Amino acid sequence: MAIRALLFDVFGTCVDWRTSVAREVAAVLPDLDAFAFADAWRSEYQPALERIRSGGRSYVPLDDLHLENLLSVLERFGAACPDPEALNKTWEKLDPWPDVVLGLAALKESALVAPCSNGSIAMMARLAKYAGLPWDCILGADLARNYKPMPEVYLESAKTLRLKPSNVMMVAAHNDDLEAAQAAGLPTAFVPRPTEHGPGQFTDLHPSGNWTIVAQDFSDLARRISQQFST
Amino acid sequence: MAIRALLFDVFGTCVDWRTSVAREVAAVLPDLDAFAFADAWRSEYQPALERIRSGGRSYVPLDDLHLENLLSVLERFGAACPDPEALNKTWEKLDPWPDVVLGLAALKESALVAPCSNGSIAMMARLAKYAGLPWDCILGADLARNYKPMPEVYLESAKTLRLKPSNVMMVAAHNDDLEAAQAAGLPTAFVPRPTEHGPGQFTDLHPSGNWTIVAQDFSDLARRISQQFST
Repeated sequence: MAIRALLFDVFGTCVDWRTSVAREVAAVLPDLDAFAFADAWRSEYQPALERIRSGGRSYVPLDDLHLENLLSVLERFGAACPDPEALNKTWEKLDPWPDVVLGLAALKESALVAPCSNGSIAMMARLAKYAGLPWDCILGADLARNYKPMPEVYLESAKTLRLKPSNVMMVAAHNDDLEAAQAAGLPTAFVPRPTEHGPGQFTDLHPSGNWTIVAQDFSDLARRISQQFST
Repeated sequence: MAIRALLFDVFGTCVDWRTSVAREVAAVLPDLDAFAFADAWRSEYQPALERIRSGGRSYVPLDDLHLENLLSVLERFGAACPDPEALNKTWEKLDPWPDVVLGLAALKESALVAPCSNGSIAMMARLAKYAGLPWDCILGADLARNYKPMPEVYLESAKTLRLKPSNVMMVAAHNDDLEAAQAAGLPTAFVPRPTEHGPGQFTDLHPSGNWTIVAQDFSDLARRISQQFST
């Protein structure tokens, strides 16, 4: 089995969305609990995606869902935001975990690297510019016009690269993402991000499936790939 | 008018396809006139695209069209190629013109840069890796499932970036590409490549339309963009 491409979950796996969103929220809405607001904003994410995955709504890019969710969370917090569209851009300004940029550069030596995120191509391109993520191209939800963990998102990403799913590894900090990728025929790599949800995180601390690789971080992943899959 | 993104034609504008293809052909088929073969292979390109643009055939990625065209040109030349699929990969190994990599790096400081090519995302991602083209993302034919100069290829690329066509500049060495982009509402930049078709080239030596910018090369383009469109 050769790994010709690596697909990456982005929110949580490549970037620390919670700290970054809280920082932007604190700058614009200083009277709020910024982490509580970030958590509330993110908690609207899966329900919004689920309406689309279930067929109850046709595909809408995540940029627009984030804005709808922001408006609803602002109302719930009783907060007045001078420019919600500007605040919504916070999802293009998320800091990478410290190992990500060098790890991707190393992985890029031996395979194509691309996000397979629920973020749009527009969002992922701007986030990559901000965070210095050296992608070879941008794949994911926008190509399949559906959201992970629907199988077509992984399969369309592999097809776009003209590769078999068995030659494309999905990398994520979330066991459910890897479960769906594995069911679609992709090899998998788990990289834990034990503080994605803050200091009290209790989910995804450990691998819960039979993943192809379990790595400590992206540098460790690059080492393991070169050891196990040298082509 | 602000330029938020620059879209680039690739074959001819960013890379010297003719010299590169001839080099690969000469390595595999040493008894042929490699430049004549490269020209013949490329001359099948527009007719193959036209069948799709005219609706006579549904969208097929350029990788597959190139292979079909290669088989037909091999037959015409009476040449036996040991591995046509490997030779077809030559379109992922094209050398950039000398100003391209540094020029794109400079342009990337102020705007998103992406190919808007008739090449597939797979082909453009691998070509970018080979040639060191630092794209922010890959747009073009694969997203619109149609071929330039159909307007939807330019419009879908702008839409994918969530930008108005008036904020997205098309860069090409071909006047007809710019004509179609301009008709779709995009500002335009002409960069001549007077040896794309070899020493005797007589087409696209000069701008033939009222383009927004006429630049000598990509470094000159970067200077002009920063002078005329500083945001």
